[in-house]
Amino acid sequence: MMSCNDVYWMHEALKEGRKALPLCAPNPAVGCVLVRDGKEISRGHTQRPGGNHAEIEAIEAALKAQRPVRGATAYVTLEPCSHQGRTPACAKRLIAEGIGRVVYAVKDPNPLVCGKGDAMLREAGIAVLSGVCEDEAREAHAGFFSHMMRRRPWVRLKTAASLDGRTALENGVSQWITGSAAREDAHRYRALSQGILTGIGTILADNPQLNVRLTGEFINPTKYIIDPRAQTPIASAVLGGAKTVLFVSSAAPKDSVAALKQAGAEILTMPTDQSGHFDLKRILETIDGRGVNDLLLETGARLSGAFLQAGLVDELLVYMAPALIGPGMPFANMDTKTRMDQVDRWRFVSVTPIGDDVRLILKKKTEHEG
Amino acid sequence: MMSCNDVYWMHEALKEGRKALPLCAPNPAVGCVLVRDGKEISRGHTQRPGGNHAEIEAIEAALKAQRPVRGATAYVTLEPCSHQGRTPACAKRLIAEGIGRVVYAVKDPNPLVCGKGDAMLREAGIAVLSGVCEDEAREAHAGFFSHMMRRRPWVRLKTAASLDGRTALENGVSQWITGSAAREDAHRYRALSQGILTGIGTILADNPQLNVRLTGEFINPTKYIIDPRAQTPIASAVLGGAKTVLFVSSAAPKDSVAALKQAGAEILTMPTDQSGHFDLKRILETIDGRGVNDLLLETGARLSGAFLQAGLVDELLVYMAPALIGPGMPFANMDTKTRMDQVDRWRFVSVTPIGDDVRLILKKKTEHEG
Repeated sequence: MMSCNDVYWMHEALKEGRKALPLCAPNPAVGCVLVRDGKEISRGHTQRPGGNHAEIEAIEAALKAQRPVRGATAYVTLEPCSHQGRTPACAKRLIAEGIGRVVYAVKDPNPLVCGKGDAMLREAGIAVLSGVCEDEAREAHAGFFSHMMRRRPWVRLKTAASLDGRTALENGVSQWITGSAAREDAHRYRALSQGILTGIGTILADNPQLNVRLTGEFINPTKYIIDPRAQTPIASAVLGGAKTVLFVSSAAPKDSVAALKQAGAEILTMPTDQSGHFDLKRILETIDGRGVNDLLLETGARLSGAFLQAGLVDELLVYMAPALIGPGMPFANMDTKTRMDQVDRWRFVSVTPIGDDVRLILKKKTEHEG
Repeated sequence: MMSCNDVYWMHEALKEGRKALPLCAPNPAVGCVLVRDGKEISRGHTQRPGGNHAEIEAIEAALKAQRPVRGATAYVTLEPCSHQGRTPACAKRLIAEGIGRVVYAVKDPNPLVCGKGDAMLREAGIAVLSGVCEDEAREAHAGFFSHMMRRRPWVRLKTAASLDGRTALENGVSQWITGSAAREDAHRYRALSQGILTGIGTILADNPQLNVRLTGEFINPTKYIIDPRAQTPIASAVLGGAKTVLFVSSAAPKDSVAALKQAGAEILTMPTDQSGHFDLKRILETIDGRGVNDLLLETGARLSGAFLQAGLVDELLVYMAPALIGPGMPFANMDTKTRMDQVDRWRFVSVTPIGDDVRLILKKKTEHEG
């Protein structure tokens, strides 16, 4: 039986889980709260890879504070793990500590382990309740679920645009449409991503660093560049800092490839179709295989349009400036529609003023929303 | 001396004033609250033209409820009037009733009467405080201030657009980008306007009725159409309902003009420049002279661009759908900019979810905002 208290404490666990980002990636940002007699004993969240999971953190915090955990209820945003990985199985530890009841939000999406932690707890005689705040937990662990269930990252397309949907003037000038607060906020999304993807067009036009410029602890994401002809200049800012991976075609000049390797870039040669284009789904699968659950697209109109039209974008992150540009670069190059029902529909998830600008987050309209 | 209480009660008066719309137009939507010993005695708002002003409504309400008003404080969102118009002067009535103190938000913008009500009250020995919530009151009475100080209406440009700034598909199809809740909300803005302006392009493309389709009491605004060559079809939906005024040039075919007059339209012949365009400022002044303080532009890209580039738009009302259209009609036809500092900058006043869409209200960035 789910009670209002269960929902309350699961929200607290979700809140605690958010603190795990960005350092826990690519592990899911799980939160755990231990509760007894309606009062919190302790809480914890997933640490850096190889460090404690949320449940262990909460238990250790309780023990450290000399608060007994026997008989307590553990609220966890994800099904406790049953397998020994780099860390011992959480389900085993919960049993060993005599936890009385476990409430978790959503089953582990990994088909190989899904339900095993749940079963292990039940077999040990622990009362288990699942499905509390399941939708919120799926959203909180979107990258992890995407990786586990689709073998591709959660793909978030970032754009800074004017009110009239322009991302640059007609002559390509784009610095700056939005204000400094919006640009700093965008860096937070870089920090929440394990990978950033862009195209050679953006590299040549803007020479971006694609790193995280924030105070505090974070990990710079790996930079992925779609660069079929290996045109990234050796002096590009993007080649400094964290690792840069270039997707090139077999037709890329060998000397350019060699020079880029020499400059520290990793080169992945990918097949192209008859028109010389990469299979974007395959690119995403490749990136997924390298520990990227959350991928930020910082692409120009052409690549943005290609990802959108291939249905490979999960979330739109739009910083909208209170400006009218007139003629300029479009949001994304897309095919012409002739009927309104062909239009690509999304749903607003949040609308937040950031400085003088507004941040719009949209997700795909799911089928049952009609 | 202004106190927190004064701000509190002025907010109540502003709230009461909002109830005056849309029926009070073109008179300002003034609110009045009578207060004694920190308690409200009564409140009132401007009635239909020829009816009571807010102060009289509040006094009458108190008398009807047999609550004495002698010595009370009157909070009014606009300086009480000193002149006998269609109704007796409010300042005189406040004096006659023995009101002890008058707090008002903003001086009357009419240069001929500005300060006279204030002086009349002071001469009668009443304590007067002005300037409480002055900015809010100016916004609440924006149309009235615009009419009085600039001799043109407050011009609000309404658009329904996709996230990528398209107001229609490339083939002109625009029904519907936004949902029914947004469209109903837009009707509320029609009801708050005394005039709606559009161009012949929109009439020919969409055949709109341009009336208010809401339940409850409202007045349908007058429809103004920029139609230099008198091309509005006699069977147009816009010729039904409230009055329609066509701005035509002297070159408009006489038989078309005669037929449109016959169909009930009013024809105003306006001069054109060498390229055959009207002076839009003069058009606004003409509309202002006809009792329109609040004008809603429901124009296509060409006219919207012309008004925007002439600096004649005061407010943007944008219903943004969570959709990506790709190639399509732009928000407004504007000149190409080559530098970011040439871009037309606004400021977000409000951002509100309406159904599946978002309503964005923007006002001009004022100079001191830099």
